[in-house]
Amino acid sequence: MTCLLAPAACAAPAGHKTTGHGHQQPKIGVTRGARSKVSAATAGMDGAVPLEPAIAPDAVINLELGDPTMYEAFWREVGERAAAVIPGWSGMSYFSDAQSLCWFLDREFEREVRRVHRLVGNAAVDDGYHLVVGTGATQLFQAAMYALSPAGAERPVGVVSPAPYYSSYPPQTDLLLSGFYRWAGDANAFDGDGHIELVCSPNNPDGAIREAVLNSESGKAIHDLVYYWPQYTPIAGAAAHDVMLFTMSKITGHAGARLGWALVKDRDVAKKMVYFVDRSTIGVSKDSQLRAAKILAVVSDAYGDDARLRLFDFARRRMRERWRALRAAVAATGAFSLPEETAGYCNFTKQTVAAYPAFAWLRCEKDGVEDCAEFLRGHSIVARGGEQFGGDARCVRVNMMDTDGVFDVLIQRLSSVT
Amino acid sequence: MTCLLAPAACAAPAGHKTTGHGHQQPKIGVTRGARSKVSAATAGMDGAVPLEPAIAPDAVINLELGDPTMYEAFWREVGERAAAVIPGWSGMSYFSDAQSLCWFLDREFEREVRRVHRLVGNAAVDDGYHLVVGTGATQLFQAAMYALSPAGAERPVGVVSPAPYYSSYPPQTDLLLSGFYRWAGDANAFDGDGHIELVCSPNNPDGAIREAVLNSESGKAIHDLVYYWPQYTPIAGAAAHDVMLFTMSKITGHAGARLGWALVKDRDVAKKMVYFVDRSTIGVSKDSQLRAAKILAVVSDAYGDDARLRLFDFARRRMRERWRALRAAVAATGAFSLPEETAGYCNFTKQTVAAYPAFAWLRCEKDGVEDCAEFLRGHSIVARGGEQFGGDARCVRVNMMDTDGVFDVLIQRLSSVT
Repeated sequence: MTCLLAPAACAAPAGHKTTGHGHQQPKIGVTRGARSKVSAATAGMDGAVPLEPAIAPDAVINLELGDPTMYEAFWREVGERAAAVIPGWSGMSYFSDAQSLCWFLDREFEREVRRVHRLVGNAAVDDGYHLVVGTGATQLFQAAMYALSPAGAERPVGVVSPAPYYSSYPPQTDLLLSGFYRWAGDANAFDGDGHIELVCSPNNPDGAIREAVLNSESGKAIHDLVYYWPQYTPIAGAAAHDVMLFTMSKITGHAGARLGWALVKDRDVAKKMVYFVDRSTIGVSKDSQLRAAKILAVVSDAYGDDARLRLFDFARRRMRERWRALRAAVAATGAFSLPEETAGYCNFTKQTVAAYPAFAWLRCEKDGVEDCAEFLRGHSIVARGGEQFGGDARCVRVNMMDTDGVFDVLIQRLSSVT
Repeated sequence: MTCLLAPAACAAPAGHKTTGHGHQQPKIGVTRGARSKVSAATAGMDGAVPLEPAIAPDAVINLELGDPTMYEAFWREVGERAAAVIPGWSGMSYFSDAQSLCWFLDREFEREVRRVHRLVGNAAVDDGYHLVVGTGATQLFQAAMYALSPAGAERPVGVVSPAPYYSSYPPQTDLLLSGFYRWAGDANAFDGDGHIELVCSPNNPDGAIREAVLNSESGKAIHDLVYYWPQYTPIAGAAAHDVMLFTMSKITGHAGARLGWALVKDRDVAKKMVYFVDRSTIGVSKDSQLRAAKILAVVSDAYGDDARLRLFDFARRRMRERWRALRAAVAATGAFSLPEETAGYCNFTKQTVAAYPAFAWLRCEKDGVEDCAEFLRGHSIVARGGEQFGGDARCVRVNMMDTDGVFDVLIQRLSSVT
C-alpha cells in the first residue's frame, strides 16, 4: 500500500504533557497539499476546472480533518470576478480603524459579514452586536474563554462540552495550561461551581442541534455556530446568543484564509476578546479580510439578480447528493450505521429540508470491531476515532467536504466492506 | 486641544490581573486609521502618492506604537508590479504542503524569505535551518516560549530580558498565565535555575546591539531580530542562533499582513512551534503569504538589474534624514538627550555606516520633569513611557517610522520645547 501519510505532519510533538487529550495526537493529514499544488499549476485565472489527478487504487484517502476542498469547484466556476487585487501599498498599518472597538477589523469585511447574516437569517447582527475578527474561529474560541473566565478566581474555571464534542476543544483549551481556564470534560458529567460551556450547533462531530445543557446562572456559554449555514442544516431562525463564532472555512470553503468572527452581545466581553487578539497576534491579516470581503460580496450578490451561481444552492446540492450516496452505501453493506436523518423548516430556503452535516458520524456495526478508525485504516480510509471526541471508539468522524474524486473513492470503499 | 485618542482603543480591559505589567495599559493609538482610509480612497492602482491630509496645529500625534507607515510612499512609487492577484478558488485547504514539517508554509513565500536573507546576509538560512511561519513575530515568540519551556517542570520557567526591554514582552508572556512559562523581569537581576532569555537586537526600545547576558548552559535564548535589517543597523554578519524571529512589518512595512517567520536550528523545537501555531490558529493566512512572496520578490529583484527602486536604499535614506533632523532638534533645545550614534561596517552596503534605530529612546533632561511621557503629552505628542520597558520614566520610546507629515510635526514640536 502506498502510504501518503506525511511523516513530518503526523509526528507528535514530544515534551509538554497537558491533561492527556489529543495534545500528543497526530492531528493533520495528507494528500491535500500535493493535489492542491497540481490544481493551482494547471489552471489559470479563467477558473477552468482542471481534471482531478486520479487516485491510485491503493492510495490512502484522508478524511480526518474538515478540509473544505469541495468548494474549489464552485469558485473556479465563478471565475475572475471573485479575484482579489491587493496593491503593494495597501495595509501598511496595524490599524483598520483606530476609533473602533475592534480596531483591526476592516470596515468592508464587517459590512459583508453583517450582510450575509441578514441574507441568510442565521444570526442576529443588529441590536448592538459587536463584531470581533480573529485568525479563524480557533483564535476567537480562545479569546472568548479568556474574556469569559472569572477575574481573580483562585483556580481555573472548568471548560466543558457534552460528548461527543469537537476533538480539538480539549487540546486547544489546555495548550498553555492557563491559570484562567482548564478543560473539564463532558458537560453532562460536570459537577463544579462555575463553568464555560462550549455549545457547538450543528454539532461537530455528529451534526446534532444543541442548546446549552448547564445552567446559565452558574456559568457562561460560547456558541460555536460555524456549521449553522443552509447547506448543512435548516435555518430555524436568527441565533442571538451572548458569544457566537463563525468562520470562512465552513461557509465559502476558504480555510486557508484563517479568518473567523465572533458576534458578541456585551461590550466588555468584546473588548476583552479584542485585547486577547491584540496580545496574541496584534490583530488579523488585512489581506485575508480584504479578500473575504470580496468573496462574501459575490455570495450575497448572487441572491439578488443573478441566480446562476449561488453558493448555498451549490453546496446544499452537493451535500444532498453525497449524503444520499453515503446512506445508500451504508444501507447496502449493513456493516455501519449513521445518525438518523433529521429535517425542519428552513427560513432561508422557505421549505422543509433535511440536514446534511459537514461530517458523517459513522458507527461500525460489525461484530468484533471495537475500533472503527483502525478498521477503516485497513480499507485505506483515514477518519478520526470516536474516543477523541469523548465518544465511542466504534464511531468515527468522516469529512463530507473533500473533493468529488476523494468522496467517490470513499463510497466505493465503504460499499466493498462486507 | 483636539484629542484624537480613540476612547475605544485606549480603554483598558477590566478583569484578569496578571503579574502587573502593562496588561492593563492602553496599548494602541490613534490618527492612523482615519488617515490611512483617506489615502486608500484617493489613490488608485497606479500608486500615485496622494497628498497627506494636513495635521491640525492642535492635533495629537501618536508615536507610541511602531506603525511603519513610512513605507507606504515607497510601495506607491513601485506601483502595479507589487500588486497581488488572488483568484477566488485559491487557498481552500488548510494545507500548503502536507509533506513539510511546517505544513501551512507556502513554498513560494519560503523561497523568497530565504532569498532575501541570502541577499542581505543577516541570517543563516541554509545549513538545515527550519522555517516556521507565524501570524506576526508575536505569535512565534509565544510558540518559541512554548517549545523551549522544559517538559514536566514543577513550576513555570522564568522568561527574562535585560531592561530596557520591549514593553509587550511581559503582557504577551503572561497573557494566559501559562503553567509552562512566566515573566520574570530584568535578565540582569535574575537569579533562578533555568530560564528563557529574550534577546532583542537591535534592541527595542533603545537600538542597542545585544547578546545574551545569561549563561546558555542553564537556559535557552530566543533572538528577536526583527530590526536586524540594513536600514536600521550595519549588517555585521549572518546571525546563526537557535531561534531567530523576523517579521514583514519591519522589513517592508507590511504590518497589516500579520506575517512573521522563525528560523529554527533544531528540528524538534521547530516541530513544537508548528504544533503551537496549529493549535492556536490552525496555520497562518495563505493570502498574506502569497502577497508577501510577491512583495519580497520585488525587493530582491531590485538588487539585480533594476536599481531604480531599492527598498533598503529608500528606507535607509529616510531613516538617516530623520535621525539627522531629530539629533539637530534635540541638540538645539537642550531639553532632551539621545543615545550616542554608533557605526560599523555593513557587509550588505560594503561600507561603514551609522545605526538608525526604528525608535528613538528619548530622555528628558529638564529639571523637575520626572515623567517624560506626561511632559510630551503636554506638547500633544504621545510616546511610550520608559517604565513600561522596565526602564527610566525620564525616557520615552518614539516611533521613527511614521509618515513624513507626522514626523515633521514631531520635529517642529520638539524644537519648540524650551
